[in-house]
Amino acid sequence: MRRTRPAASDIPPELAIDAAAVTKLLVDFVRRETRRAGFRRAIVGLSGGIDSATSAAIARRALGARNVLCLLLPYRGSSPDSLRDAQRLARLLGAPAERVDITPMVDACYRREPRASRLRRGNMMARIRMALLYDRSLRDERLVIGTSNKTELLLGYGTLHGDMASALNPLGDLYKSQVRQLAVHLGVPDRILQKAPTADLWAGQSDEADLGYAYRDLDRLLARLVEMRDSPEAAVAGGFPRRMVEEVRRRLVGSQFKRRPPVIAKLTHRTVNIDFRYPRDWGS
Amino acid sequence: MRRTRPAASDIPPELAIDAAAVTKLLVDFVRRETRRAGFRRAIVGLSGGIDSATSAAIARRALGARNVLCLLLPYRGSSPDSLRDAQRLARLLGAPAERVDITPMVDACYRREPRASRLRRGNMMARIRMALLYDRSLRDERLVIGTSNKTELLLGYGTLHGDMASALNPLGDLYKSQVRQLAVHLGVPDRILQKAPTADLWAGQSDEADLGYAYRDLDRLLARLVEMRDSPEAAVAGGFPRRMVEEVRRRLVGSQFKRRPPVIAKLTHRTVNIDFRYPRDWGS
Repeated sequence: MRRTRPAASDIPPELAIDAAAVTKLLVDFVRRETRRAGFRRAIVGLSGGIDSATSAAIARRALGARNVLCLLLPYRGSSPDSLRDAQRLARLLGAPAERVDITPMVDACYRREPRASRLRRGNMMARIRMALLYDRSLRDERLVIGTSNKTELLLGYGTLHGDMASALNPLGDLYKSQVRQLAVHLGVPDRILQKAPTADLWAGQSDEADLGYAYRDLDRLLARLVEMRDSPEAAVAGGFPRRMVEEVRRRLVGSQFKRRPPVIAKLTHRTVNIDFRYPRDWGS
Repeated sequence: MRRTRPAASDIPPELAIDAAAVTKLLVDFVRRETRRAGFRRAIVGLSGGIDSATSAAIARRALGARNVLCLLLPYRGSSPDSLRDAQRLARLLGAPAERVDITPMVDACYRREPRASRLRRGNMMARIRMALLYDRSLRDERLVIGTSNKTELLLGYGTLHGDMASALNPLGDLYKSQVRQLAVHLGVPDRILQKAPTADLWAGQSDEADLGYAYRDLDRLLARLVEMRDSPEAAVAGGFPRRMVEEVRRRLVGSQFKRRPPVIAKLTHRTVNIDFRYPRDWGS
């Protein structure tokens, strides 16, 4: 795959990564964790965007191109460009691809509710995609590789049991600006690198318009609040607008339920996910 | 609701619960956690079985009948008796009910794969049901109340991101035999109490045939291995057949991935679900 470099000035220094070192670490992670789970193959849902392209490229290096199935799951409202970009990427990776149009499944859910909001429809698309990924995962003995980055996870900008669901997530500890650096290093095509990030759940959707701020600024603020444990006041003193700090803080706290397993009423001294939470391969 | 008592001899002593005390605890749990999450209403998927009947009865006591929506989600292969039992239960609870036939959504997924296994189809049904529960949850501002009991959770006898998904799970720390005691106390109708437990994913399915053992025996063995931390050897010495102990132990270890959040590659010192895992209402 072709290599380019982003202009150094695009990357805030606190978010700069050593893309070669991170690549090595993530390739090792996917290879090791896939084997620990007893698998040799993986499946990734390709949307045509940067995150899924990066996850797929990592999985390909870890497991080999023919062991990574790219699942393309367009809806009738999805951008045709997204599908084309995903198809091109799968070809570039040399990985097998399977395309399933999710329109009949999604539309069947709203036959009696034609006025359902686009947010509901977007969540439904994400969950139908999850269900198809896991279905093919079972059919072929493949692990589902996740594509949620740390910015999305921390802001709750994703669908629980939808795009946030996976067996292994190589990107979950990288902010969006860091995934971009990794994507450049991995040779993700310029077309994918340069388009505006979008969940593509309705025409013209833009992540940055939904979130109200540029990823670059969100990432810098999140890094202060989460990595450096700055207080909101310190972030304001450091130059972030108070309104932005309050909004981001509200999103961060309000989306915690999406990052944690279901709350179980504790009755015994060994409760699932409270005191019974070994690693996955405990005891083997 | 009418009250009956199970024959005392049916309950192994180590699994006996004080159903009145547990009911109070779980009703308080659902009421408190629903409010903590900023909600007043709930939604439960009613299958016609004991677990969902018990969760719904708890939710009704916690939030009031009109605040608990019962969602009935039959597939064309589901038993008509299951649907009737679920409808009767909703009426008995005095709770609103909504019925959505999931056949078109599920069948649309397999149009090009008519020979997909019944296990794949069963998982798909569970995930489509989850997607519809969360869809109605968003539409009406209702929390999804879970119905997975501890036996199912520990054996991995459920669908990840399907029936195992919920916001709050009042039953997750109760073995199947304990849910039954609770159901009796809550007045769940005899028809539901007396039928053989089934996931109802295909005609004639039986949990105990799938699992290979009676719930009563599975629960007793799990309680030894999990609550009392007995070794497999001690369980064998205690009278459980070696083959059963080995099978249950294999299921327990092999299903850990269903009980834990996705594995994220750790790169920073604050990683979601590793060192960044506050309770849901942290910071509020």
